[in-house]
Amino acid sequence: MSRVVKLAVIPGDGIGPEVIAEATKVLDAATAGSDVTFEQTAFSLGAGRYLETGDTLTDADLASIASHDAILLGAVGGMPGDPRLKDANIERGLLLKLRFALDHYVNLRPSRLYPGVPGPLAEPGEIDFVVVREGTEGPYVGNGGSIRTGTPHEVANETSVNTAYGIERVVRFAFAQAEKRRKKLTLVHKTNVLVHAGGMWKRIVDEVASEHPDVAVDYLHVDAATIFLVTNPGRFDVIVTDNLFGDILTDLAGAVTGGIGLAASGNINPDGAFPSMFEPVHGSAPDIAGQQIADPTAAILSVALLLEHLGLDDEAERVTRAAREDIAERDGSTRTTAQVGDAITARLRA
Amino acid sequence: MSRVVKLAVIPGDGIGPEVIAEATKVLDAATAGSDVTFEQTAFSLGAGRYLETGDTLTDADLASIASHDAILLGAVGGMPGDPRLKDANIERGLLLKLRFALDHYVNLRPSRLYPGVPGPLAEPGEIDFVVVREGTEGPYVGNGGSIRTGTPHEVANETSVNTAYGIERVVRFAFAQAEKRRKKLTLVHKTNVLVHAGGMWKRIVDEVASEHPDVAVDYLHVDAATIFLVTNPGRFDVIVTDNLFGDILTDLAGAVTGGIGLAASGNINPDGAFPSMFEPVHGSAPDIAGQQIADPTAAILSVALLLEHLGLDDEAERVTRAAREDIAERDGSTRTTAQVGDAITARLRA
Ligand SMILES: CC(C)[C@H](C(=O)O)[C@@H](O)C(=O)O
Ligand SMILES: CC(C)[C@H](C(=O)O)[C@@H](O)C(=O)O
Repeated sequence: MSRVVKLAVIPGDGIGPEVIAEATKVLDAATAGSDVTFEQTAFSLGAGRYLETGDTLTDADLASIASHDAILLGAVGGMPGDPRLKDANIERGLLLKLRFALDHYVNLRPSRLYPGVPGPLAEPGEIDFVVVREGTEGPYVGNGGSIRTGTPHEVANETSVNTAYGIERVVRFAFAQAEKRRKKLTLVHKTNVLVHAGGMWKRIVDEVASEHPDVAVDYLHVDAATIFLVTNPGRFDVIVTDNLFGDILTDLAGAVTGGIGLAASGNINPDGAFPSMFEPVHGSAPDIAGQQIADPTAAILSVALLLEHLGLDDEAERVTRAAREDIAERDGSTRTTAQVGDAITARLRA
Repeated sequence: MSRVVKLAVIPGDGIGPEVIAEATKVLDAATAGSDVTFEQTAFSLGAGRYLETGDTLTDADLASIASHDAILLGAVGGMPGDPRLKDANIERGLLLKLRFALDHYVNLRPSRLYPGVPGPLAEPGEIDFVVVREGTEGPYVGNGGSIRTGTPHEVANETSVNTAYGIERVVRFAFAQAEKRRKKLTLVHKTNVLVHAGGMWKRIVDEVASEHPDVAVDYLHVDAATIFLVTNPGRFDVIVTDNLFGDILTDLAGAVTGGIGLAASGNINPDGAFPSMFEPVHGSAPDIAGQQIADPTAAILSVALLLEHLGLDDEAERVTRAAREDIAERDGSTRTTAQVGDAITARLRA
């Protein structure tokens, strides 16, 4: 029985197209000869498209993307300080709009220190945890505004919105992850300052914890969590946290595990009502774009998350293994973006 | 001409009293025989006081503290999870209340890797920067609330309030720091998501920058800043940032420079309308309290910041030097809290 997966591909800006070229190469190799076919549709979106047409994400784009089974995204965002992008906010108007419109309430970001990868820590120990970052609430909702804008009397507010509905579903997902892993879950928040939002997170984690007596639960303030990420990252198994804290912790976690060139992520709608979106954690890095020096590994590992999400566990496992083997043999010599993709593809074909 | 400084001392909870005992010992030694006398008044505040009397910070306490010239604080906060503290929020009701009531709009947190100090980074390089954290606005204002609290339909909001007035004054302070240092200032925020607050921070930094053409200014998103703190902390000179981002970055910076046992801070009202408050960045660590194993160095370095703030530059310099010399000769052997204080005091007397 053959299966067709409709995949929306958004290469984006900067190094996005380069890393996505390798990611789709790997996807094709991983599924060649299997029962599943990926029907890929490319969407030209990002700063480039904005500069050409003035569009960030049209309703038609969004509807078309939403009709796919899954999304693979490279990176979006133009050159920082480009005056032509002054009034554009590609991140909010495109990336966050997709996450919110497609109800990607789980932003899943595994952090793993692969053998052989040089990182900044003197004694990293074993690092293998996942951050389950809430993706549709918190300070990211865009419920801010300002008065007397641009004057010495300006007041600008940003409101973090948090709901029991939104927290419970992501907390349940995180506990399910912990059950499949080392059965440890750490809530990260700032309950001593953000007492209302933090209090609700704490309450709901405690409630769901009672259904998972085998999962050990602890709590850290976000500031303390950053300390442990550099002094004892091995203490973490599953971290569940809000949108903003998750953003911060996962970049730090990426750095600690050898750089965000290796960090993959999934923006997941576990209910399946909307297509989930997989993307490297890194940005578009326009300063190094077009030079074939970007590391496509994070994009390739995002393909593994995509395959896993679609229930293609064998294929996911093969991609992860091929990438991991490639990483283990890196010796600091430089390869082009395509050479890394080719090497991982060759391992898959072998 | 002799000068009397009225100093309010708040030892607080946990290891607070132990480290403050050493800090005041050092303060006495540093000013012995000089023209300045510190008249110290101790205030019993914190979880301990709350458990005894139910008070967190009475109006009378606050008025009395406010009538002093400066404040030295150890750490406040009870044992996490103590059921008797369930309804207390010592952090909000005491520490943050002092910072807000006394208009401590600059939270100054120097980060320095002292020679000989072991840290978590394999190749830390030279680390010497200060974080100028805004102290009276942002998500810390306590303008949050919830509806349907405790139910599956709860909605909890937290509002970050930011004013041009509040930002401009702290940004000016940060530029003045940069002028005295390596003339580099980095704004850290999350302008691509928190567009209103972030946009105002950016605008005001740009405006004040035009008055400081010799200061090099750059901008980092908070997530990227955490990466640089572990991969290239030497790139930072002065960081200016909001209250919450500053909280996170300074704990991480403390870890990177060998632990928050060394991190000092000042909650400063530069206008002098209210007394400024000096405290170690670390918390009350009730789990190790009373054992004489806490490192008093952060509290002692906070005394140096206090002396500097009062214009007692020579005394400040001597305390810093004595602490630094002591740090340089640490060989991993354990000394009691008092032994560290005594050793630094002995150097001052020498
Ligand atoms: C580009 C930005 C809006 C985004 C975020 O803050 O979520 C990025 O940092 C990420 O982590 O995916
Ligand atoms: C105790 C807490 C409220 C405080 C803060 O968040 O400011 C602490 O973490 C600090 O950094 O001084």
